[in-house]
Amino acid sequence: MSVDTATKPHDRLAEALAEDMGRVNTMIRERMASEHAPRIPEVTAHLVEAGGKRLRPMLTLGAARMCGYDGPYHVHLAATVEFIHTATLLHDDVVDESQQRRERPTANLLWDNTSSVLVGDYLFARSFQLMTETGSIRVLRILSNAAATIAEGEVLQLTAARDLATTEETYLKIVRGKTAALFSAAMEVGGVIAGQDDARVQAMFDYGDALGIAFQMVDDILDYAGSDATGKNIGDDFRERKLTLPVIKAVAKADAEERAFWQRTIEKGKQDDGDLGTALALLDKHAAIDATRAEAVAWADRAKAALAGLPDHPIRGMLIDLADYVVARLR
Amino acid sequence: MSVDTATKPHDRLAEALAEDMGRVNTMIRERMASEHAPRIPEVTAHLVEAGGKRLRPMLTLGAARMCGYDGPYHVHLAATVEFIHTATLLHDDVVDESQQRRERPTANLLWDNTSSVLVGDYLFARSFQLMTETGSIRVLRILSNAAATIAEGEVLQLTAARDLATTEETYLKIVRGKTAALFSAAMEVGGVIAGQDDARVQAMFDYGDALGIAFQMVDDILDYAGSDATGKNIGDDFRERKLTLPVIKAVAKADAEERAFWQRTIEKGKQDDGDLGTALALLDKHAAIDATRAEAVAWADRAKAALAGLPDHPIRGMLIDLADYVVARLR
Repeated sequence: MSVDTATKPHDRLAEALAEDMGRVNTMIRERMASEHAPRIPEVTAHLVEAGGKRLRPMLTLGAARMCGYDGPYHVHLAATVEFIHTATLLHDDVVDESQQRRERPTANLLWDNTSSVLVGDYLFARSFQLMTETGSIRVLRILSNAAATIAEGEVLQLTAARDLATTEETYLKIVRGKTAALFSAAMEVGGVIAGQDDARVQAMFDYGDALGIAFQMVDDILDYAGSDATGKNIGDDFRERKLTLPVIKAVAKADAEERAFWQRTIEKGKQDDGDLGTALALLDKHAAIDATRAEAVAWADRAKAALAGLPDHPIRGMLIDLADYVVARLR
Repeated sequence: MSVDTATKPHDRLAEALAEDMGRVNTMIRERMASEHAPRIPEVTAHLVEAGGKRLRPMLTLGAARMCGYDGPYHVHLAATVEFIHTATLLHDDVVDESQQRRERPTANLLWDNTSSVLVGDYLFARSFQLMTETGSIRVLRILSNAAATIAEGEVLQLTAARDLATTEETYLKIVRGKTAALFSAAMEVGGVIAGQDDARVQAMFDYGDALGIAFQMVDDILDYAGSDATGKNIGDDFRERKLTLPVIKAVAKADAEERAFWQRTIEKGKQDDGDLGTALALLDKHAAIDATRAEAVAWADRAKAALAGLPDHPIRGMLIDLADYVVARLR
């Protein structure tokens, strides 16, 4: 809270796109409603109204504006992107709750699970309804491809979890799926709806892809390195036995004893009180956080480079700053 | 097995559409595959390959053929419809397993739940990719509407479960959502892809809608009345405390003592060994099964009436017979 928020690129973007974002929020509220099943807005409201950063819809609005679009459909597409994101969060809850549950069952988890699954499905369907209103088969193709890639990434993450043999290549596939696919699609449809040529649309995609990868790598670092700003608990990924990039890098350099530690804690899931501390010490010993940070910075640079050839525009400057800011969360 | 299967309208349809259905099956196998997540076809294969009746894709193929369509896209749409159906089944598993689970947890349920959620999402996304290949915004609109209606119906069923105040009107909304929406959309897109006029497309929709409602009512009867042919367990809906039409009708005529029975068994879920027998006796006392059967027959008649104005065609005859057959499962 001590940081001057007025200078944050995210807040400058939000200010520049405030009018459009107001329309997106109105559309989200309208389309969440269900005539027949009033429980649906109950479940979604706390997620959609919780005042998330709306980063993904902002990318769509920003891309469309930067490309000079003046029609109405960037609002539909931004709402679509947020619906897909929210549906994914709801289904992630089921996946994550199921895993936690083995340790500590809660009373109303069953009801929550079923609601999460079905309301997530409803939002997916709603998002496709919204897309059809644009009349563009091309944006439908882009966003349905993104939805398939997201689901593939999540399944891949599930099968790679607890597997010390997970490579950096597999990690990148997972991240491209679960995070970057929606970032890149959000940018791409902004360019497509604005009628840009293939090179310009590719630049949008590349920016979103690289930004999404940098964003996820930073998230994975923060899960170990922590930060007051995020409010995240340190060590969630460790407890959930996820093979994120810092761990993959530390495992690659592990000696026999360290390997036995990772096998016990990640593969077998036998974790004691001091184990998170040991894990952090091993990441430090092998400079795994620094190495991951260097990769995140490189992806942020790629994101900036993707927009370098575009005509000057206030939004373009903010998106370039946003790429720096995503990585600056670490400092 | 003693019935002469050659005379069943379903089998006659399957024979008439065998070549198209072969293409649908090939497309389903191809599009189920995932380059990055080989677990996906593992999970779907047992569902898709299990030799289900393929009733829904057959409606799409049949509608398109009956309307004289000779292009390739009815195959995409039939595969789409089967993907949506399979995704729904996967997510239903999570919902149903969660409910059973309170009684008897099983070891690998967690893994199954997460896979079911994510693979279901993948199939939903794949189904939308398939649709975009038709290039028709109108079929995309119809099928995304259907997907939203299905999810609404499932949520509505969840909120109505265990509630003795559930009306026949609410039951019909649930059935239209969870079952009839996909039947009617499957028929409708067959007509749309064949370029039929609005009246003809409406006839397709009406047939599917009425057939779906009859189909679900018969299913709900069989859950109490049973049948060797179905292989279903009698009383599943009773144990899951679902307010299906036979129970709604019996509750409406219940005296004070009977009402206390339904409150204990359905609302509070306190069920003993003899309770299913008592429930069956109460359905019998109030002729609830007969009354439900009469409604199913009426819906089957509406399905047949919807096709009555269409030009003569072999498929049309089979679809009309199919409506009779759906209800004949009861005898």
